[in-house]
Amino acid sequence: MNTDETTPKLREFGENRMLSRFRRLAEAAFTPGVILGPGDDTAILRVPPDRVALLTCDMLAEGVHFRNDWATPWQIGWKAMAVNLSDIAAMGGEPGFAVASVSMPGGAAKEMAEGIAEGLIAAAAQYGAALVGGDLVGSTGPIVVDVSLLGWVEEELVLRRSGARPGDSIVVTGALGASAAGLQALRHGLQGGSSPAVQQALAAHLTPQPRVKEGRAVAQTRLATAMLDLSDGLAIDLPRLCAESGVGARLWAERIPIAPACAELATRVGAEAFSLATAGGEDYELLFTCPPEAVSRIADAVSGVGGAAAAVVGEILAERAIMLTDHEGRELPLGTGFDHFAGETSR
Amino acid sequence: MNTDETTPKLREFGENRMLSRFRRLAEAAFTPGVILGPGDDTAILRVPPDRVALLTCDMLAEGVHFRNDWATPWQIGWKAMAVNLSDIAAMGGEPGFAVASVSMPGGAAKEMAEGIAEGLIAAAAQYGAALVGGDLVGSTGPIVVDVSLLGWVEEELVLRRSGARPGDSIVVTGALGASAAGLQALRHGLQGGSSPAVQQALAAHLTPQPRVKEGRAVAQTRLATAMLDLSDGLAIDLPRLCAESGVGARLWAERIPIAPACAELATRVGAEAFSLATAGGEDYELLFTCPPEAVSRIADAVSGVGGAAAAVVGEILAERAIMLTDHEGRELPLGTGFDHFAGETSR
Repeated sequence: MNTDETTPKLREFGENRMLSRFRRLAEAAFTPGVILGPGDDTAILRVPPDRVALLTCDMLAEGVHFRNDWATPWQIGWKAMAVNLSDIAAMGGEPGFAVASVSMPGGAAKEMAEGIAEGLIAAAAQYGAALVGGDLVGSTGPIVVDVSLLGWVEEELVLRRSGARPGDSIVVTGALGASAAGLQALRHGLQGGSSPAVQQALAAHLTPQPRVKEGRAVAQTRLATAMLDLSDGLAIDLPRLCAESGVGARLWAERIPIAPACAELATRVGAEAFSLATAGGEDYELLFTCPPEAVSRIADAVSGVGGAAAAVVGEILAERAIMLTDHEGRELPLGTGFDHFAGETSR
Repeated sequence: MNTDETTPKLREFGENRMLSRFRRLAEAAFTPGVILGPGDDTAILRVPPDRVALLTCDMLAEGVHFRNDWATPWQIGWKAMAVNLSDIAAMGGEPGFAVASVSMPGGAAKEMAEGIAEGLIAAAAQYGAALVGGDLVGSTGPIVVDVSLLGWVEEELVLRRSGARPGDSIVVTGALGASAAGLQALRHGLQGGSSPAVQQALAAHLTPQPRVKEGRAVAQTRLATAMLDLSDGLAIDLPRLCAESGVGARLWAERIPIAPACAELATRVGAEAFSLATAGGEDYELLFTCPPEAVSRIADAVSGVGGAAAAVVGEILAERAIMLTDHEGRELPLGTGFDHFAGETSR
């Protein structure tokens, strides 16, 4: 981040003034269920009485999940909220209320904290949620942003990872690989250009759009058997769904929808589009399973709410293995996923 | 922390194995409201339908809120959960479900992550809550632990900071300064000794006991007008309550209950017990206000549930100033509190 020498730093601006500013920002975007927002020991909230609650958290760390020279503070905040919204979407739920904790050095610019807060609030508001509390702490290390999100869903509609059955179709929303292509664009210094593919890929990587209305539409059909969001990529998330369901899966390589921006950028940077789409991660599309005869009705329901296209990419197997098959029936290797402690950074 | 060279590191142990282990630890301490815990996109939870929800988060950062050579991983986890439980207590609520995010370097010992998880779960279980989800991320910096806690309370019982009225008595539970004395003991290297005062002070600092049953008892009397928890110390937290209530306060110096361990340690380390008790922070006692005639009934209710003693320490004024008066009526200076970005570390 380009920090003007005259920009006030957090330690000069002061914690109390910063918290007052956050409070005003958050209050401007309250939803009707907020009885009391930031400023007390806890927020006070009205949760619909005839729902089960959904609770999730995701933490983003500077140097691991984002870089300040690649993402603006607003984008960091947006993404930190979006990845949590995506988790609520993956249960078929509605997002409600979020709290966010941020640690950063006292020498960071006040605009850094403010931009992150604005991004958090903008993403929440876009999907009907409100930021109702938070914590801001000084630290000696990189910036860390942690968001927890409370949502809800009718108990009879909730979609877990564990319901997939042999014979089910495997369906994904949207197209894959754009986020990984955006990361490649950043690594290759392409962000300055005006190429539409680069801009689409950067947007997918920096400001992902969680599939909240799509997840809700899938759940409301009551026809899907399991769902999750593709945060780490098909190659790691599908095995997770299969493990929870006690099943295996076959993916058909040629059916996996590759984002056009991914295909175009892969060529430019010498990467393989298929790998970016299956193992790159961070697309935040939804993957769900359902009986084959239900696919078109669910896809219609999703497009009926203005949602992303849904594509069948494989089928659930009784045999507990994950297989990838090309159009001639040959087995292909499926790349393995991301381990947070395996040494890769700044993905 | 003393790390044996043969202890497996997180990056060797692997993220998935670590998360599986956390899941088993958490599952062993589930409460009846947990429909689904860690392992899916979100937890699925049953929240009492006739309550308002309370949501809070608090983040602890290594080098700022804790030091690995002063606190065990278990104590770090305990405290991270306890400070959130204290926030729910301060609203008069009941804690329900927590999620926790932890970032730490891949080179950290697996036992570090495990100990933090065990401490988190132990503190939650002690106060009727369950850890239902989390995130574990690699980072290049110090350890950061962020907990979000969902609780609830009858809407008509909730106690905000904003209800204090001129003439109200100001009451605190327990005694103050033990936590700050514990920090002094650590700074002076006294932790190895067997002095009961040192051990009590260390326990107060490293494994605080949130006043959950006390807060609940206060709320159930319906006689208190405002409440908060003393996380940053009387000198900073009372002005916060007063600001929210649009009032001022007079504290009577000789009425402020100083923990015996604080008094004893202050002498040993050459600190002023009164300063530790009023400006040291992290006691996690409750401060509430109520009409003077209600004090004894509330104190009885608190002791009726086996809670800490309650002591009147001052009165609410219409004039918006915070004053401290000694037993001869002289005005004394009230130390100012802690700013997270003002440069002090490892408090």
